[in-house]
Amino acid sequence: MANLSQLMENEVFMAFASYTTIVLSKMMFMSTATAFYRLTRKVFVNPEDCAGFGKGENAKRYLRTDDRVERVRRAHLNDLENIVPFLGIGLLYSLSGPDLSTAILHFRLFVGARIYHTIAYLTPLPQPNRALAFFIGYGVTLSMAYRLLKSKLYL
Amino acid sequence: MANLSQLMENEVFMAFASYTTIVLSKMMFMSTATAFYRLTRKVFVNPEDCAGFGKGENAKRYLRTDDRVERVRRAHLNDLENIVPFLGIGLLYSLSGPDLSTAILHFRLFVGARIYHTIAYLTPLPQPNRALAFFIGYGVTLSMAYRLLKSKLYL
Amino acid sequence: MANLSQLMENEVFMAFASYTTIVLSKMMFMSTATAFYRLTRKVFVNPEDCAGFGKGENAKRYLRTDDRVERVRRAHLNDLENIVPFLGIGLLYSLSGPDLSTAILHFRLFVGARIYHTIAYLTPLPQPNRALAFFIGYGVTLSMAYRLLKSKLYL
Repeated sequence: MANLSQLMENEVFMAFASYTTIVLSKMMFMSTATAFYRLTRKVFVNPEDCAGFGKGENAKRYLRTDDRVERVRRAHLNDLENIVPFLGIGLLYSLSGPDLSTAILHFRLFVGARIYHTIAYLTPLPQPNRALAFFIGYGVTLSMAYRLLKSKLYL
Repeated sequence: MANLSQLMENEVFMAFASYTTIVLSKMMFMSTATAFYRLTRKVFVNPEDCAGFGKGENAKRYLRTDDRVERVRRAHLNDLENIVPFLGIGLLYSLSGPDLSTAILHFRLFVGARIYHTIAYLTPLPQPNRALAFFIGYGVTLSMAYRLLKSKLYL
Repeated sequence: MANLSQLMENEVFMAFASYTTIVLSKMMFMSTATAFYRLTRKVFVNPEDCAGFGKGENAKRYLRTDDRVERVRRAHLNDLENIVPFLGIGLLYSLSGPDLSTAILHFRLFVGARIYHTIAYLTPLPQPNRALAFFIGYGVTLSMAYRLLKSKLYL
């Protein structure tokens, strides 16, 4: 067990664990937001979900799409598409022995950019707010990937 | 190599590895289910996929959507949205030195809930079966995230 | 820090880190491809994204779908569905002490298959090119899952 406690005593790894947990929790919040809008706006996609609102044809009119629900879902999918690379590349980057302050700068920028992306998507804020948030997160992940491949390439 | 064998001798980590492999294999099964329904129901989304069923207009009539295929795809996306946070948070939680029986309870509940979620979605079972399955998995991940941030926060 | 440097001196783990970084970077490229086609073809899904192309009704006509954009998005989602299991199972497999040349064969096949899958999807190449690429990647992940569960099952 010695090496496990050592892993969690490594400051870069602990910082990665904290920021990752925060950004994944934020992503999980999107599921709640989708459920909230589906229930308050009575917009469903599965017949069994709106069975409580009436029988037969009466319930079927709740099987529809809604701009707000679709917007939350797009923001959720964009999170998935960007947080998955951060998770994989960030984990390996953290283990590759980077400088602590550089690593924390990467993690903070990424988490901040993704939170800002969600706000920009759901408000919605005018462009280029969302595009900017997207590219900051994207750039951070690419920067970690570059650092990793430069120092530890083994093909 | 000493520390690697140590990592895999850690019981919490071995349990995490086993349950994660099972739940990810279950998620991969959704791709096969989609392919199965697409082929048996002749429902395709890419023109090149139904080229074998005829030429030109004759093939184009297979480019359609189908309730069952869309249902499997929604179940698959829901898996992705929930298993990705489990993967990240669960890995870090496993490395943070939790109590073995508590950790295994978390992993078992999560994997059980996701398998039940798939059954509830594909059958489909009446609500609140699927909602319950979803919230058990969600709660397990949040519980691990809480434990992690409480013991190892480093921002 | 001793054990961290040991982890990155492990050749299987370094190979996993390199191939994972490459395949995740490839997946991130899909976001750029989507943005490229959205901008060059003027196909948008959010009203705020096409506000620069005109006011009111004039801008609304760019809120549409396009075959090419949808194709890139499907390829991206398929990447997510397949790279997430590779990420989780591959990481645990790398830590389970596999034979170096076997492990590298797995990683190379997977990364090659996913790159070929993207080419086959975006060109598009006639089937069964894409199906073959999909099943090679799928088989590699299942093979690692099998190896992992056989040697390290702990439930």
